Amino acid sequence: MSDIKKLIQFIRKEFNRSLKLFPLPNKPEYLYDPIKYALKGEGKRFRPILVHLSGKAYKTDPDIIMKVSLAVEMLHCFTLIHDDIMDSDNMRRNMPTLHHQYDISSAILAGDGMFTISQLVLIGIEKKPPSLMQFYNEAVLEICEGQALDKDFEDLDEISMDMYTAMVEKKTGALLGACLCLPAVISERSNDEIKRIKYVGRQLGIAFQIQDDLFEIFEDENKMGKSLGSDIFSNKKTAIAIEANKINKNEWDSIIHQFDGKDLKSIRNFLSENKVKEKVETLADQYFNSAYNELTNLGFNKESDLYKFFKMIQGRHS
Amino acid sequence: MSDIKKLIQFIRKEFNRSLKLFPLPNKPEYLYDPIKYALKGEGKRFRPILVHLSGKAYKTDPDIIMKVSLAVEMLHCFTLIHDDIMDSDNMRRNMPTLHHQYDISSAILAGDGMFTISQLVLIGIEKKPPSLMQFYNEAVLEICEGQALDKDFEDLDEISMDMYTAMVEKKTGALLGACLCLPAVISERSNDEIKRIKYVGRQLGIAFQIQDDLFEIFEDENKMGKSLGSDIFSNKKTAIAIEANKINKNEWDSIIHQFDGKDLKSIRNFLSENKVKEKVETLADQYFNSAYNELTNLGFNKESDLYKFFKMIQGRHS
Repeated sequence: MSDIKKLIQFIRKEFNRSLKLFPLPNKPEYLYDPIKYALKGEGKRFRPILVHLSGKAYKTDPDIIMKVSLAVEMLHCFTLIHDDIMDSDNMRRNMPTLHHQYDISSAILAGDGMFTISQLVLIGIEKKPPSLMQFYNEAVLEICEGQALDKDFEDLDEISMDMYTAMVEKKTGALLGACLCLPAVISERSNDEIKRIKYVGRQLGIAFQIQDDLFEIFEDENKMGKSLGSDIFSNKKTAIAIEANKINKNEWDSIIHQFDGKDLKSIRNFLSENKVKEKVETLADQYFNSAYNELTNLGFNKESDLYKFFKMIQGRHS
Repeated sequence: MSDIKKLIQFIRKEFNRSLKLFPLPNKPEYLYDPIKYALKGEGKRFRPILVHLSGKAYKTDPDIIMKVSLAVEMLHCFTLIHDDIMDSDNMRRNMPTLHHQYDISSAILAGDGMFTISQLVLIGIEKKPPSLMQFYNEAVLEICEGQALDKDFEDLDEISMDMYTAMVEKKTGALLGACLCLPAVISERSNDEIKRIKYVGRQLGIAFQIQDDLFEIFEDENKMGKSLGSDIFSNKKTAIAIEANKINKNEWDSIIHQFDGKDLKSIRNFLSENKVKEKVETLADQYFNSAYNELTNLGFNKESDLYKFFKMIQGRHS
């Protein structure tokens, strides 16, 4: 196994151990049982890994970094829980989503509780610049804005690719930007450096989300841990839908109208034959490249852990 | 008009002006339209008033106090929005609740956004002790726990009065405790003083909630700005339900089983005839007295603004 893979495995293991040991009360069960259920899910821990790799690069205290990574993963879980209610998604990480396993009320409250706990985890870091909480909560507000744009777009007929990338930059990019910049904030790097490493994370986030839109149609359900095609079914404006619309709006409309929520064959055929898949893959690569470029400018070369991890993300299902 | 009434009116007016001027983006509409709608509601602003009166007593910078009061009111609105979804309440402050006016997804997201904005407002206070955010978020987690207990109790057959007061101390008391103690925290009062003024707020909160349970049955719908009896209808374990159960469980069960969600006459008769109303009023007064006592111990006599405001709260519908 390559060194970077070993490192990632080590971080994931250490992180999962910390998460398991995280002290949560038992009562009231109505609040903490769903929270425990949500944290049991076997996430890929991309975000905590980004925090740890950035922390390693910026020589941030490892104990502090563990706290930041716990906060970030809890924040991420909270947004997934609330998003799953809004998007009526029933499966996540091979488990029923929280509102599906419990109910909508429990899921709303569990999300609120997790978000609050994530704040308390960060607040518990003794030596921290005052701007840490600011960066964190600004990212959260952007995530809310991104989710709002995503919901707004459902009712719009045509969305440009620029509108789409602006949406996913907030919805997915803001948190990845925070993962990379929070360790730099703690290590009191210059405002310029913080801004640039945040930009790297945001570009990575856009690339990551575009890839996810592709996986949502072309991947294996078991590998994804959820049913596929729900973006299409709920008329989400993904990069794929935007490109497909451009190629042949009438045919695409008729294909998605016939979609039963399960059989993706005709959708896949249309996207492959019309090179939509290829185009969207190229678009994702462009954002990966933008992330690599700025990362290199910041002094992280191809041998750096962050660079190598980005490559792993890029090739995560190939 | 008495001096205290003039003062309260002045604070409310200034607060409402600040809230109106609070800079909120226009886009995405999906997020900010519902937030603006929620802030338009004509709340009584009890919590901001408590913050201002405590800030005045502790000689806290008025600009900082305004920020704290804005944060606290937004936090309060956020919890109401999410609670209204969980409790399927359709009216609030004489307006349709947010999920009723928009939909559940918008209301979840608006709540999340408001909570995040409230954090950012507090974070924006330049000179603040690190413990400010800690006290704030600890209160939020307690509010979540209180709401969880409330939901848990719906499925339980018998709840003791101690369990009830422990629940409302979290659900309602935690925030009122924060309103009174946050200014003391900012003015760097001793830990003992902070703890005691927080206790005052928590006792006030219990008293306030017990009264609210009474109003929910005995008040005028227009005055309350919402339909009444919903606690009974959804089998909420209020102080009234607990006392009524003690008096005559069978008769009370049969009365609430017959309740159509509208006509409260037989419920009111039972509660008055069996002196349940009287008992619960006495219970509320006990918690008010406990608040007055500790307030007096802290040096706030009967002529202090806080004492007088508590008296106004106690007599708010009489």
